[in-house]
Amino acid sequence: MIIVMREGASRREIDEVQEEIKRMGYTPHPIIGVERTVIGAIGDERDKARLQELETAPGVERVIPILKPYKLAGLELKKEKSLVAVGRDAVFGGKRIPVIAGPCSVESHEQICRTAEAVKAAGATLLRGGAYKPRTSPYAFQGLEEEGLKMLAAARDCTGLPVVTEVMKESVLDLVARYADVLQIGARNMQNFDLLKAVGQLRKPILLKRGLANTVREWLMSAEYIMAQGNMQVILCERGIRTFETATRNTLDLSAISVLRRETHLPVVVDPSHATGVAAYVESMTLAAVAAGADGIMIEVHPNPHEAWSDGAQSLTPAAFAGVMGKAKAVAAAVGREI
Amino acid sequence: MIIVMREGASRREIDEVQEEIKRMGYTPHPIIGVERTVIGAIGDERDKARLQELETAPGVERVIPILKPYKLAGLELKKEKSLVAVGRDAVFGGKRIPVIAGPCSVESHEQICRTAEAVKAAGATLLRGGAYKPRTSPYAFQGLEEEGLKMLAAARDCTGLPVVTEVMKESVLDLVARYADVLQIGARNMQNFDLLKAVGQLRKPILLKRGLANTVREWLMSAEYIMAQGNMQVILCERGIRTFETATRNTLDLSAISVLRRETHLPVVVDPSHATGVAAYVESMTLAAVAAGADGIMIEVHPNPHEAWSDGAQSLTPAAFAGVMGKAKAVAAAVGREI
Amino acid sequence: MIIVMREGASRREIDEVQEEIKRMGYTPHPIIGVERTVIGAIGDERDKARLQELETAPGVERVIPILKPYKLAGLELKKEKSLVAVGRDAVFGGKRIPVIAGPCSVESHEQICRTAEAVKAAGATLLRGGAYKPRTSPYAFQGLEEEGLKMLAAARDCTGLPVVTEVMKESVLDLVARYADVLQIGARNMQNFDLLKAVGQLRKPILLKRGLANTVREWLMSAEYIMAQGNMQVILCERGIRTFETATRNTLDLSAISVLRRETHLPVVVDPSHATGVAAYVESMTLAAVAAGADGIMIEVHPNPHEAWSDGAQSLTPAAFAGVMGKAKAVAAAVGREI
Amino acid sequence: MIIVMREGASRREIDEVQEEIKRMGYTPHPIIGVERTVIGAIGDERDKARLQELETAPGVERVIPILKPYKLAGLELKKEKSLVAVGRDAVFGGKRIPVIAGPCSVESHEQICRTAEAVKAAGATLLRGGAYKPRTSPYAFQGLEEEGLKMLAAARDCTGLPVVTEVMKESVLDLVARYADVLQIGARNMQNFDLLKAVGQLRKPILLKRGLANTVREWLMSAEYIMAQGNMQVILCERGIRTFETATRNTLDLSAISVLRRETHLPVVVDPSHATGVAAYVESMTLAAVAAGADGIMIEVHPNPHEAWSDGAQSLTPAAFAGVMGKAKAVAAAVGREI
Repeated sequence: MIIVMREGASRREIDEVQEEIKRMGYTPHPIIGVERTVIGAIGDERDKARLQELETAPGVERVIPILKPYKLAGLELKKEKSLVAVGRDAVFGGKRIPVIAGPCSVESHEQICRTAEAVKAAGATLLRGGAYKPRTSPYAFQGLEEEGLKMLAAARDCTGLPVVTEVMKESVLDLVARYADVLQIGARNMQNFDLLKAVGQLRKPILLKRGLANTVREWLMSAEYIMAQGNMQVILCERGIRTFETATRNTLDLSAISVLRRETHLPVVVDPSHATGVAAYVESMTLAAVAAGADGIMIEVHPNPHEAWSDGAQSLTPAAFAGVMGKAKAVAAAVGREI
Repeated sequence: MIIVMREGASRREIDEVQEEIKRMGYTPHPIIGVERTVIGAIGDERDKARLQELETAPGVERVIPILKPYKLAGLELKKEKSLVAVGRDAVFGGKRIPVIAGPCSVESHEQICRTAEAVKAAGATLLRGGAYKPRTSPYAFQGLEEEGLKMLAAARDCTGLPVVTEVMKESVLDLVARYADVLQIGARNMQNFDLLKAVGQLRKPILLKRGLANTVREWLMSAEYIMAQGNMQVILCERGIRTFETATRNTLDLSAISVLRRETHLPVVVDPSHATGVAAYVESMTLAAVAAGADGIMIEVHPNPHEAWSDGAQSLTPAAFAGVMGKAKAVAAAVGREI
Repeated sequence: MIIVMREGASRREIDEVQEEIKRMGYTPHPIIGVERTVIGAIGDERDKARLQELETAPGVERVIPILKPYKLAGLELKKEKSLVAVGRDAVFGGKRIPVIAGPCSVESHEQICRTAEAVKAAGATLLRGGAYKPRTSPYAFQGLEEEGLKMLAAARDCTGLPVVTEVMKESVLDLVARYADVLQIGARNMQNFDLLKAVGQLRKPILLKRGLANTVREWLMSAEYIMAQGNMQVILCERGIRTFETATRNTLDLSAISVLRRETHLPVVVDPSHATGVAAYVESMTLAAVAAGADGIMIEVHPNPHEAWSDGAQSLTPAAFAGVMGKAKAVAAAVGREI
Repeated sequence: MIIVMREGASRREIDEVQEEIKRMGYTPHPIIGVERTVIGAIGDERDKARLQELETAPGVERVIPILKPYKLAGLELKKEKSLVAVGRDAVFGGKRIPVIAGPCSVESHEQICRTAEAVKAAGATLLRGGAYKPRTSPYAFQGLEEEGLKMLAAARDCTGLPVVTEVMKESVLDLVARYADVLQIGARNMQNFDLLKAVGQLRKPILLKRGLANTVREWLMSAEYIMAQGNMQVILCERGIRTFETATRNTLDLSAISVLRRETHLPVVVDPSHATGVAAYVESMTLAAVAAGADGIMIEVHPNPHEAWSDGAQSLTPAAFAGVMGKAKAVAAAVGREI
């Protein structure tokens, strides 16, 4: 920590801050500047959240942390990229880029099976589908729940594709975990810390979506919540952040991939469907994500988008999805990856 | 709903959209413009989320909803302001403005009782204190849990102040409800829809904080989630939104009070402590909130802010709080209210 | 400056950074931490923008500036609040709060004179009106230009109210300065640095609006541009920032008043009309601004808002303005000010 | 325009709005809904900015425009993509993607010539360099001005690379235009409407950067300002928008490319250097921009980034730039383009 004293802080204030630092178990190290004094506090920074409280001490202007607050998610303890394997074929974090595809909501046995077969034929390696749906309106369709999970499992049986589905609450966690190969934590639950702790108890991969208004740093702290419980199989998923621009549903932050690469060993998936909210923009953002270094792609596909029960506007038809996959393979090859 | 067709949409596309509207049970009403056709769809808009999906139909440019999506929270069904009473003395939504004060976290019996007495003496009518704490870091203090709830209850016994405390998960909801007079849903849980449904089953007041990146409309939809379960005692709490400005922790959106006044009958509380994150800014934002028409104020107070276990930087001392209260009373009087 | 070295930076990298610091004329001061080394660089920080470039040197993680970048606008050189006087009666920064009122655009001799008389009768002390208008569309009304300036001058002659009007380009600066008592730099020109330098050459008060996406720090740097040319009569004007919320045109950042109070001696005016974009919200935000400590208020008033050539939706009628003024006086009195 | 009446608007209010619409020269077309009436106003929407003012009429809730406000920049008048040619070799908008490279600031004859040769060797087709610099601080280096323009011209003479440089004010426009092949309007001047009109009088290509907080729609309106003066050679440049995320200087909005493709025929360049502010992220964002469909790339290159007078932290070395170009060529080929 660096404690910056106000200009004109008195000798006594400076001394008291140093005393306080010592009381907390750290070593103060003052630098007397031309206009201002700053004090370094030496010791293990990760245990010293309380040093931050020195900001309220007399004469202190601000306190600047130096170390990253995440240990398990950060590169300091583990430098090589993590691999998260799902089923026999999909590995997130390797040379090959898994593609997760499927409808926003599971609607019927036929819908999910048809979609699963179509996306598999086009090269997808995992199937997505929502059985529990976070909807802004209480009057909107909330998902088929366990019935939907069973349909997903049936679609997995037919196609061999592992299944990714969202869990929104602890009370159905065991149930969802019984059916799902990967559990998704949605954007709105990125800081539902109790849910994070609960999925941290599992030994299954967790797809952790970035919150709409969360920084990369907060996102990694949420990954840390899961990992601190012992579950190291965390896959991050960038899905757009909220900005002033309304031409797209959210603003896809592809530079987050590079930022994450310097901060964490965890793999990063990109979801261009939720980010843009517009089917016509999905292809372009998929190709960009692959070029930017994404370790996975998640795309919404529906056999008949304008009859979808949710998010039809952003879903691709199976034919459009196959077209995107063809182009994505070419871009992947150009950057030394495979799809 | 208004369906706007693309420029150059064919006669056939326009006809098909009209057919689709009829199939969904609405009456299409086309307006042929100079450059473009728009089609009104008449019927009860709140059941027609699926009309939105017409955005993916050939020839359609966009679909514009006309009605508000909230019924119970909106002014269309109930025009007069709602009153939410807590304990014997506090009523949110009336002429008198209740003030909720107390520490971020409950830390000890002595800390919470001393604070409760001090804030009561200064005119606060409710006590706040966190027993379950949502913390960005898994390594930060997470709250005293049930022990903290008991301390809150003891402080209520001494002072008569009703207690506001946060609930973060369903599994402790009954427990928290046993001790709390008002249950707080934190900003990070504003769209934790299962938790909203669960507190909707209670018959106790709910303080619903606005999410960091949520619009007023989404906030009211979250209130609607609670109300749709039968619990009409919802108090909204503005606590700052996330913007590009970093000089304050968040940006307090006081104009939300006026916007809400035109959209809902629910009372609105303002929390200047979390919004600014800086004790020195709390007084000014408290006075502004009162002048802007807030129906309640929530302020963090700690007997010794720079020893607080969390959020010390934004907590007032009891003496500073008393000073703010004095000024707030004067401003309240100036706008025809009381504190 | 504090230079934070990467974890694992080599002895040689640390030495070279210290050498570089010396070459630039500063004194390096290393602190060897448990996991990382940080180096303080002592000397006058304001001339060392180039130290920032050490961020690209091998082994460096980041460079943290300590001092404020503004001298003339900051509190380090001048601690007491600045007073900016306009005409005989208006002083920004004192106990009395001047109110600037008038239409968005000057439209006719009659319109501006009628408005001037009405706002004066209600207690306004300055008249605003645009003769050069920054409009998003090239096809929208762009202002009456010199003709409009003459009408403003005539309105000043009738009423004695000093005139505030916007200048958008250097080529008409002398012309505008001949007619105006206060020159306004609009939000879109807050970082039009050449225009700032040009108005810095004048010896007239400048009302500097905050840019839609500018931090308080950048705003003060723009004030510094004006002051560095010798014009110390700068009045800051908060008029809302751009956020994700669309219920209001912008989000009025009233906490900026408190932030500025800790950073600058310059007076701060608030413009609730442009901030909200909705006439119905202007009263509430005016009262909040006064309570929050604003040194001036600027409100759009038009004799017949729905015939206004621009910004009608946010303009008050003279009668509504008089109502707001009455309430604002009461709030001002409650916080020890006057209107 | 669609005028939405409030719920419960009286028959008389509805009639008066219709009368007003007729008085303005449009044809009203009411749709009586279950809960609310909406009125279509038929006529050429682009001349009816004043219809928007109906929002203040009694009984009106809101007014929704249907047509795009831009004519020349939009696809309604011109559907095929525009080509903007510079010098003999560079064409923006075609299959081949021009790359603009060079330092942030021109610093010396040697620096700019060395850079020009290096970037040409790596495949760049235009040279960038700032002679007039918009700097947040008045105390920072402001550019070499005409001296810098001469150095750019000399570098063009040596290498044959056309030159892109920023113009910040009308008073030096002729001077800059004498030396530059493409004039850049910087992000901070995107809504400096007088400057836009002035460059609209030229018959040279204009690179129009997106403002930090401007929507795609506003950006196109600024292009319209230039085009309305007769200069159709507008190249748009996405360079990141301001969001809450601080890990990058701005957030690069690559989905803007797709949005623009549906709105305009103008070519779109991407500037990953200013968007991210970090040299290490430039490669990844360059590849993503090419994959997303950018019509040009602009990259900062400096022979010795950590001695740069400005923006060193985001500049690539010539060697790093050559590496990026190699990869960008492969990605371009994968999406059917060339570099």
